[in-house]
Amino acid sequence: MSLIAQPQTMNFDAALPLQSGASICDYHLAYETYGTLNERRDNAVLICHALNASHHVAGVYSGQDRSEGWWDNMIGPGKPVDTNRFFVIGVNNLGSCFGSTGPMHQNPATGQPYGADFPVVTVEDWVNAQAHLLDRLGIDQLAAVMGGSLGGMQALSWAIQHPQRVRHAVVIASAPNLTAENIAFNEVARRAIVTDPDFHGGHFYRHDTLPRRGLRIARMIGHITYLSDDVMNEKFGRELRQAVTSHASGYKFSTQEIEFQIESYLRYQGDKFSEYFDANTYLLITRALDYFDPARQHGGNLSHALAHVAAKFLLISFSTDWRFSPARSREIVKALLDNQREVSYAEIDAPHGHDAFLLDDPRYLQLVAAYFDRICPGDRS
Amino acid sequence: MSLIAQPQTMNFDAALPLQSGASICDYHLAYETYGTLNERRDNAVLICHALNASHHVAGVYSGQDRSEGWWDNMIGPGKPVDTNRFFVIGVNNLGSCFGSTGPMHQNPATGQPYGADFPVVTVEDWVNAQAHLLDRLGIDQLAAVMGGSLGGMQALSWAIQHPQRVRHAVVIASAPNLTAENIAFNEVARRAIVTDPDFHGGHFYRHDTLPRRGLRIARMIGHITYLSDDVMNEKFGRELRQAVTSHASGYKFSTQEIEFQIESYLRYQGDKFSEYFDANTYLLITRALDYFDPARQHGGNLSHALAHVAAKFLLISFSTDWRFSPARSREIVKALLDNQREVSYAEIDAPHGHDAFLLDDPRYLQLVAAYFDRICPGDRS
Repeated sequence: MSLIAQPQTMNFDAALPLQSGASICDYHLAYETYGTLNERRDNAVLICHALNASHHVAGVYSGQDRSEGWWDNMIGPGKPVDTNRFFVIGVNNLGSCFGSTGPMHQNPATGQPYGADFPVVTVEDWVNAQAHLLDRLGIDQLAAVMGGSLGGMQALSWAIQHPQRVRHAVVIASAPNLTAENIAFNEVARRAIVTDPDFHGGHFYRHDTLPRRGLRIARMIGHITYLSDDVMNEKFGRELRQAVTSHASGYKFSTQEIEFQIESYLRYQGDKFSEYFDANTYLLITRALDYFDPARQHGGNLSHALAHVAAKFLLISFSTDWRFSPARSREIVKALLDNQREVSYAEIDAPHGHDAFLLDDPRYLQLVAAYFDRICPGDRS
Repeated sequence: MSLIAQPQTMNFDAALPLQSGASICDYHLAYETYGTLNERRDNAVLICHALNASHHVAGVYSGQDRSEGWWDNMIGPGKPVDTNRFFVIGVNNLGSCFGSTGPMHQNPATGQPYGADFPVVTVEDWVNAQAHLLDRLGIDQLAAVMGGSLGGMQALSWAIQHPQRVRHAVVIASAPNLTAENIAFNEVARRAIVTDPDFHGGHFYRHDTLPRRGLRIARMIGHITYLSDDVMNEKFGRELRQAVTSHASGYKFSTQEIEFQIESYLRYQGDKFSEYFDANTYLLITRALDYFDPARQHGGNLSHALAHVAAKFLLISFSTDWRFSPARSREIVKALLDNQREVSYAEIDAPHGHDAFLLDDPRYLQLVAAYFDRICPGDRS
């Protein structure tokens, strides 16, 4: 039987100071919890989400069969992060478009939607907001904080910002910062959105339109980088969508019609995304990715940045992930070892590229299960 | 002293039948030649260009100091392809925007610019058009045909389509077809162009505008794929364009302003490109790339596709080229060896990614020089 999930909202009156120097007042966070907080309040696991996910991590919504959470293969009763043992919290980040305060919400200063005026938020800001949520839930210390990709950056940042509040950090398919190439892909996606005439400088809500063209392009670029070359060749290769019979090649000979299956797949993904994702959120979240760089304030020295980390770590990377390659995870492993921290690291040989962290690879899921089996709610530090 | 180049034009009255079944009438090809055709007319080397290049391969234009041809480090007196020995021909392909008949030219059927109605042309069509040019120049057999990237595909196709007319084929940083990922990048670029409101279905000339937004995005995507992750990190890394002093991080905290050097570089490249490159040409040339697949009509068997090739081959790939990886060149090498053809292959350890084929790597240039030294104009087959 599936877990039934119930979205909740927590309102915060006190202003949240942001890394940029700005602050955000009167905000709310959407979240969900699964399992039961024990008496000692020490079995909580916080799940941080990546670019286009939300607080709906596990379970389904009542009466909605196809509403599984985005990490439902990972989290639930008897699953690797077992909700019979752990109290799991999914939280939607500030600036997102899935429930927490974001660009579509009203700016108290103007009475209009924030739009492009929503303040720039960073991984560190998200972590601080999540910490306030934990305060309100009466959770002093997390058994674990866990995330993949941008979610892994938040897990890493938790261990840096609040070393005494995290016993274990599980950082999957992540990196200590973006490479120039990563930033470049983000920038192209942002330019596609910002230069869409329907973007209206980020205030498209007022114009009753959406910058769908830009969002489609952004998503298509994203999708290419989530998959490996190998898995794309295996899934799509050079297969035609619909071969014509009048040419030996089967080609339609058209520059604009869909010819190859991969084109059809990408256009479909782009179309779907453009209908549900907020363009200002896309800008904010890709910028948070760009900015994350805990070593920056330590002259680029990641070992120094992690000097005060107290958590034990599990890091996992995937062999064909070229967006956040195993080498990037190994940088974090090395910096932790430089500080004599306890760290487990696995590089999983998987063909799926960056997407692998969301998929049902049995070795991967077993590895996480084994790690959480060893996390005893009683091992409070 | 630099070679002085002179662009020339050859007009063709006879219709050129195209692979699609369409044909193109009354077309012209822009070309340049360097060096002297010998009496036996057997020292000609044809250079085929890639996506955004032209017939202006070598030398400078009279009185224009900064007008070097795109392969001026490779071709000229005393250079690897030595114009003291060889008669080198650069030709602009049909559908291009640099002189040969293309979408900006008048469609004889309508009296209007072709625009999006320019027929889809393939690598095979280009080779056939180039062959007609050679006929008119009185060149029966090429000492060599040579190209990088899409130019390498043309060199390979020459050896397949006109086996008796090619003694040597030099195929650099190329592939026997595009992977799904390659097609995916092309498709995103095309969608950016086609969905730009200024594209007007490809008839933007009539509207006195250009789909600059789409071209910029297309070029930015292209540039990312031309460079290696390593060289991007080395050239740009996470360097800020202009750090602000009010934050420890130096960030401006903006989603739209340029923050990182890599963003500045990409925007500059995109802006420049959008001013000189034709959007319809971009669609045509990326589609020619997608379609090229000589193995297709042989059930995917490249060895069968190359069964009648007579030329000797030099193939070169670059270690960090992830667009046309060394593995793709090795597929061609293997298929040639399956047919007992004479083939030299070098994988050059270079950090520059796909762009390396245009750069001044001494090992690369020496290798080509050594190969051409061995091509004796008298070794006519």
